[in-house]
Amino acid sequence: MGDKTHDNVLITRRRLLSMAGALGAGAVVAGLGPFSSGAGAGTAELAQKWPWPYMKLDPAETAEIAYNEWYRLFCGGAVISSIFGQLSKKAGEPYRSFPVDAFIFLEGGVSGWGTICGSNAGANIVTNLIIGPRISGSETGMLMGSELMDWYSNTALPVFVPKKPRVTAEIPTTTSNSPLCHISVGKWMKAADKELASPERKDRCARVTASMAYKVTELLNEWKDGKYVTFGEIPSAIYGITAQQNCNECHGENIPTPPAKKPEPAKPA
Amino acid sequence: MGDKTHDNVLITRRRLLSMAGALGAGAVVAGLGPFSSGAGAGTAELAQKWPWPYMKLDPAETAEIAYNEWYRLFCGGAVISSIFGQLSKKAGEPYRSFPVDAFIFLEGGVSGWGTICGSNAGANIVTNLIIGPRISGSETGMLMGSELMDWYSNTALPVFVPKKPRVTAEIPTTTSNSPLCHISVGKWMKAADKELASPERKDRCARVTASMAYKVTELLNEWKDGKYVTFGEIPSAIYGITAQQNCNECHGENIPTPPAKKPEPAKPA
Repeated sequence: MGDKTHDNVLITRRRLLSMAGALGAGAVVAGLGPFSSGAGAGTAELAQKWPWPYMKLDPAETAEIAYNEWYRLFCGGAVISSIFGQLSKKAGEPYRSFPVDAFIFLEGGVSGWGTICGSNAGANIVTNLIIGPRISGSETGMLMGSELMDWYSNTALPVFVPKKPRVTAEIPTTTSNSPLCHISVGKWMKAADKELASPERKDRCARVTASMAYKVTELLNEWKDGKYVTFGEIPSAIYGITAQQNCNECHGENIPTPPAKKPEPAKPA
Repeated sequence: MGDKTHDNVLITRRRLLSMAGALGAGAVVAGLGPFSSGAGAGTAELAQKWPWPYMKLDPAETAEIAYNEWYRLFCGGAVISSIFGQLSKKAGEPYRSFPVDAFIFLEGGVSGWGTICGSNAGANIVTNLIIGPRISGSETGMLMGSELMDWYSNTALPVFVPKKPRVTAEIPTTTSNSPLCHISVGKWMKAADKELASPERKDRCARVTASMAYKVTELLNEWKDGKYVTFGEIPSAIYGITAQQNCNECHGENIPTPPAKKPEPAKPA
């Protein structure tokens, strides 16, 4: 259960629907929320209508922006800003009215708590906002976000090298086997023997952010061209619990088994 | 290191600035991003100007909305929707143009990956969007978000009982000692002996979401009244790595020590 393979990565519609059932059957209905009753208004209407307008972007240019934006907004904010900043100029609304700067709080796995790496959180915000959430009629935004977390977890990062690095020392690469900031940063700090406050650690995170911005843009461009086939999976549908896919790393050999479905009580005849 | 106490919870400005240094010194400068060069436009201007307009809300009513919204948008989306839906009606923009429905992807710790519980992610989105990110000049939104994650981790949840529960069986409470969905849901599933797809697990998560919406509203109301004093801490500033605060639970007794700061090389005279 602890090892992740890519033998079976194309999620089936059946599996997706079983996941939806596991998380909350009956919830897959769009447009019933407290926002749907409001009177029409330009941006407000655009913001909850999917997909958002998308023009293909240059992945390398996007990554350079993300690298530099990291030094202003950190990981999550920088991924969003690198893509929405360009689309704000090319397409205008609803990008211009999205409060990107607020997402600096994704830093350090949400305000330094080491939960989801902001690169992953930012990537999921981007794919779900542009392509749309699954209640809008397409599962692609969610599955692309999931694919990006899998890519992050299983790639030796950072892969992107900026044109003008702020730190010229060699930055080692590490594979996190996890979408979590604590594990990703911790493994890198151990491999590099550098503390959290070091310029090298900061530049490593800026380059990881840029690597993610590059990859998100590549996938969005494929999607725009109608060529995107998802590799995204929903782990909760596979494991019987919401989960990343490195069970052994925390549980050792003693991986708990989720409770099984109970038989229905016999009904009176 | 593994035990969390509340003996010293008021973060000092010095500690906060040291945290900012650890994460990326020099980045605490507002308004230099790619969005700042655009021409003025109503909602776009409002969206990145903080604080957003806030009118006090009824915590119990907000929690009821969140409970029911869980069955449409799950944890993260429901926390945001319960508060922004009301403020959208009371204050209009920039709430009306925020794409709440997209945040259904926070379900199951981000698309079923078990990372940050959506209640925590949603709460942080709400506090940082309303009060503002720390680059807007106030650290309160970030620290309130951090306080809410601490409250989530150290409280037997759910505390909120809806007026008309969809599941009438008793729902046990559990303390997660973690802001992560996998750990929070896993401990509850074990205590309740219920599988992920069970109606009880779903209603438990709906009630946890409602409990968080209640607590967020209480703190925002205090803030509106000028009475909010934060208990929020930034763990990365304390632990030398981005971290939740239950080290032993994954590491056992063998908790790694983060690399120490290296001495500066001697400079030529």
